[in-house]
Amino acid sequence: MEIKLVKKVLEAHAALAGEIRAELARRRIYCLNVMSSPGAGKTTLLERTLAALAGGLRAGVIEGDITTSRDADRIARHGIPVVQVNTEPFGGDCHVGANFVQTALEELPLEELDLIIIENVGNLVCPAEFDLGEDDKVVVFSITEGEDKPLKYPLMFRECSACVVNKLDLAPHLEVDLAALVANVRQVNPKIAVFELSAKTGEGLDAWLGWLRERVYAKAERG
Amino acid sequence: MEIKLVKKVLEAHAALAGEIRAELARRRIYCLNVMSSPGAGKTTLLERTLAALAGGLRAGVIEGDITTSRDADRIARHGIPVVQVNTEPFGGDCHVGANFVQTALEELPLEELDLIIIENVGNLVCPAEFDLGEDDKVVVFSITEGEDKPLKYPLMFRECSACVVNKLDLAPHLEVDLAALVANVRQVNPKIAVFELSAKTGEGLDAWLGWLRERVYAKAERG
Repeated sequence: MEIKLVKKVLEAHAALAGEIRAELARRRIYCLNVMSSPGAGKTTLLERTLAALAGGLRAGVIEGDITTSRDADRIARHGIPVVQVNTEPFGGDCHVGANFVQTALEELPLEELDLIIIENVGNLVCPAEFDLGEDDKVVVFSITEGEDKPLKYPLMFRECSACVVNKLDLAPHLEVDLAALVANVRQVNPKIAVFELSAKTGEGLDAWLGWLRERVYAKAERG
Repeated sequence: MEIKLVKKVLEAHAALAGEIRAELARRRIYCLNVMSSPGAGKTTLLERTLAALAGGLRAGVIEGDITTSRDADRIARHGIPVVQVNTEPFGGDCHVGANFVQTALEELPLEELDLIIIENVGNLVCPAEFDLGEDDKVVVFSITEGEDKPLKYPLMFRECSACVVNKLDLAPHLEVDLAALVANVRQVNPKIAVFELSAKTGEGLDAWLGWLRERVYAKAERG
């Protein structure tokens, strides 16, 4: 009985993700689901990325947090349409669910957008399990977390199209082996695109922006 | 029906945690549940702590990971009894559950131990929700994660008796406001004991060790 019930809930979630995917395909809006541990630099990467895209591509943001609107406030300062989704009223969920995304989409000016970025709850485990109807999942992986994390949390790295290896500016002050860190990412997912950068200084950002722009344009064309 | 079922599962978990607590009280073994985001430095803190306690208090360790035995291998090198619990066979659980602890306790030489340290899965959200029958919960909070995290993930900080603010050696290279970071910890939990240290260099470790020793001795006496 328990298994049946869980299966039913998961099926409903998958159906909802499918609806979101169909709606975004119809509108030719690209959707990116950004995940990471707490404090890996998702919001800083988003701020940098949105500033670089401004004037070209039109972005909207869905901010997922258990509580507070601190990240949404940071994004709103850039004049970007942003919707805050707090999971706290739903029991403090450890991930953004497709139901949250559906609710948030109703608040965004979809007819004016080329892409939507979802910033997930800071958690390297649970968010990887949920399809949100996005085109790509990306994991932001801070080099302060240590080179072994892809091996210890493989599902996250397996599910993602891209991995942003962040906080490169701290490399001189850490004992981290960057080559081993990237090798571990690729061992878990040989197809993943890896971008080594510092969202804080902007170093290495161009390759990441190029990848993202290409994905957005491809979606706009195939519709 | 769904609510009933979830309630039943949670009740069974709470009952199991109660059994573990009673067993450890009978044996006068202190139990500490160590939690944090991935890469905040739990294992390094454990290595430092176990080395400092060696010759005095006798410790055993339960290592929780979704997959791999990397952390258990690191601990075993110190000649400490350690049991690895992988949550992967159970669907890659995002936290250590009381059932895992019960299984692990059967593998530890309980008659020879003064304390047991559980290193939880790296996750700042879900592990905070589960009672494992421990005496204290402690959160390791790396200063690289940013000063706002206690406000964004309040349950973890609310549930813990102590907060180890780690990676103090990196402070000169970050823009983090340490006073604000500690104030945010105390805002969420005014009673929490805060220890600012570097598990890597050993700076500030003594206050933490003093707190831990006191907790272990108190348990040994009250039995």
